[in-house]
Amino acid sequence: MKPADRHRRLSEDGIVRALKERYASRSRLVETGIGDDAAVLRALPGRKRWIVTTDMLLEGVDFRQNWITAAELGHKALAVNLSDLAAMGAIPLFYTVALAMPRTVDPAWIDRFFRGLTSLGRKWKADLIGGDLSSSRSDISIAITAIGTPAGKRAVLRSGGEIGDLLYVTGTLGRSASGLKLLRSGILQGRNRAERLALQAHRTPEPRCDAGAWLGRSGLVRCMMDLSDGLSVDLPRMCDASGAGAEICAADLPCYPESQAWRCDPLDLALNGGEDYELLFAVPPSRASLLEKHYPSNLPPLAKIGSLTAAIGVRWRPSRGAAAKPLEAMGYDHFSS
Amino acid sequence: MKPADRHRRLSEDGIVRALKERYASRSRLVETGIGDDAAVLRALPGRKRWIVTTDMLLEGVDFRQNWITAAELGHKALAVNLSDLAAMGAIPLFYTVALAMPRTVDPAWIDRFFRGLTSLGRKWKADLIGGDLSSSRSDISIAITAIGTPAGKRAVLRSGGEIGDLLYVTGTLGRSASGLKLLRSGILQGRNRAERLALQAHRTPEPRCDAGAWLGRSGLVRCMMDLSDGLSVDLPRMCDASGAGAEICAADLPCYPESQAWRCDPLDLALNGGEDYELLFAVPPSRASLLEKHYPSNLPPLAKIGSLTAAIGVRWRPSRGAAAKPLEAMGYDHFSS
Repeated sequence: MKPADRHRRLSEDGIVRALKERYASRSRLVETGIGDDAAVLRALPGRKRWIVTTDMLLEGVDFRQNWITAAELGHKALAVNLSDLAAMGAIPLFYTVALAMPRTVDPAWIDRFFRGLTSLGRKWKADLIGGDLSSSRSDISIAITAIGTPAGKRAVLRSGGEIGDLLYVTGTLGRSASGLKLLRSGILQGRNRAERLALQAHRTPEPRCDAGAWLGRSGLVRCMMDLSDGLSVDLPRMCDASGAGAEICAADLPCYPESQAWRCDPLDLALNGGEDYELLFAVPPSRASLLEKHYPSNLPPLAKIGSLTAAIGVRWRPSRGAAAKPLEAMGYDHFSS
Repeated sequence: MKPADRHRRLSEDGIVRALKERYASRSRLVETGIGDDAAVLRALPGRKRWIVTTDMLLEGVDFRQNWITAAELGHKALAVNLSDLAAMGAIPLFYTVALAMPRTVDPAWIDRFFRGLTSLGRKWKADLIGGDLSSSRSDISIAITAIGTPAGKRAVLRSGGEIGDLLYVTGTLGRSASGLKLLRSGILQGRNRAERLALQAHRTPEPRCDAGAWLGRSGLVRCMMDLSDGLSVDLPRMCDASGAGAEICAADLPCYPESQAWRCDPLDLALNGGEDYELLFAVPPSRASLLEKHYPSNLPPLAKIGSLTAAIGVRWRPSRGAAAKPLEAMGYDHFSS
């Protein structure tokens, strides 16, 4: 049966059967996957910790259907969860997906959504083990739960940072937000490399699974989190959890200067733009040179952006010589207006 | 701080902090719970299997806000997941919750939702370990992932039933659907015990965790599932998984005859009404007397409703003497019209 035939009469059981046929896990760890009341997983021999995270994407809030394809949305919904595992220094193993959509949704849309989802899953060796398909009145909503295990001896938490620790981030900050700005001004296809990278960062962020696992295994990192709501919102969260303040310098932020071409302020977006899904972590000064020496060159580049301080609160210097001033939280909060 | 103060300025972090303070797990198995990028769980010593399930509830499809309170909705959202674990013969351990709601939602509503949710969790010793709070454009949507472990040596699947096995269900069938009928006719408060039980079955179904665990441990059960979409939809699923047919007799179904008082057809609702969250399972005839002898009297009562057959398809007898005829799937499917 071709997918088109398979979905001609759309039914929950039909969709589940198609998903099971196509995406059933071959992992030894999955005793029973898609299609039963629940999945049955074998415990990982020698592994004593499981890492579990849940994240959802909502139509009209986190995405608009005319701005993202079904496959990209599937990718992104899983990416934000794998990013959370990476931020724990964990490698992904499994995920479930709860997908609600109006009855009018095109069966081909569902196909493409699951293709994008499982394609990213395969890349990071994470298996779809189950989920729930539901109809909704109007909006699409997606909730994914991802399960992993620490790459090293233990998970890396947000807490554990100490005063004096150096702060690092992976990759580029503000690129995703600059992509969102393109979409908002009606530019759905990048007209050059800079725009394409920005749109890609927004639509199909690449979770930093490899960097997170390497950092987790390295034992060099005291605390870590992923940047989903913007540095100005997320860094205070790490500081709160670690009982420290922080100071960063604008000159050290790995901004996306190309976005000036479409009238973005790269610094503003690096501080306050959300959805970068890069890793933010703290390293004791004594281990910083070890980190910089051994961090693999094929992983997303690191930038040292500041340090944890005794003074409570997050402060930033607009330029290297300037006085530090409080960093206002301008990033994304679902419930603040 | 009182909850009211705590939520006056509603923010994601504020809500998460309040949840963490109030509902943080004290289980030895939870190394890191609510508030980090992900939860860290210790593996259960001696336990080699994990059971994972995800189920969602959507406003306007699965519930209407004027028909169910926030606390009842919290209860129900978790109950449908614990029911899936029970159907695997598993005991619950943990759950995550992804909750999306419009920004206009009353903070007290969120409080009551989590109270109803965690109250059922406590009853069955399941700990809230994390989740995601998100704003939505209009509808509330809830996705819960529950994690457990088999009560016995192994999980009980839908497959594994053999021809000749006897079919049993727990509790009463069609009571929840009769409660829904009351709501649809504008009766939001039961005027007598029968109506109250019906409304309760619909709004706050009690997951059969104890029966599921007992049956899982007993080793007497070949296959099991929970009844969420109605017997006429769910029994064929078990038959498909087990490669058998089934025959049941209307006279043996544990209907809810009281619902005739509000013009329900108890038999129709027992066959086609959804959301009973009772357990359906198959037992080899040689072990049926053991089951009936040892099944604890304080658990929901069992009814023997038929057997698995060599003839493919599900058939039913309207009365004991009558000829068997095919059972049409009239229960709930999210995507059939």
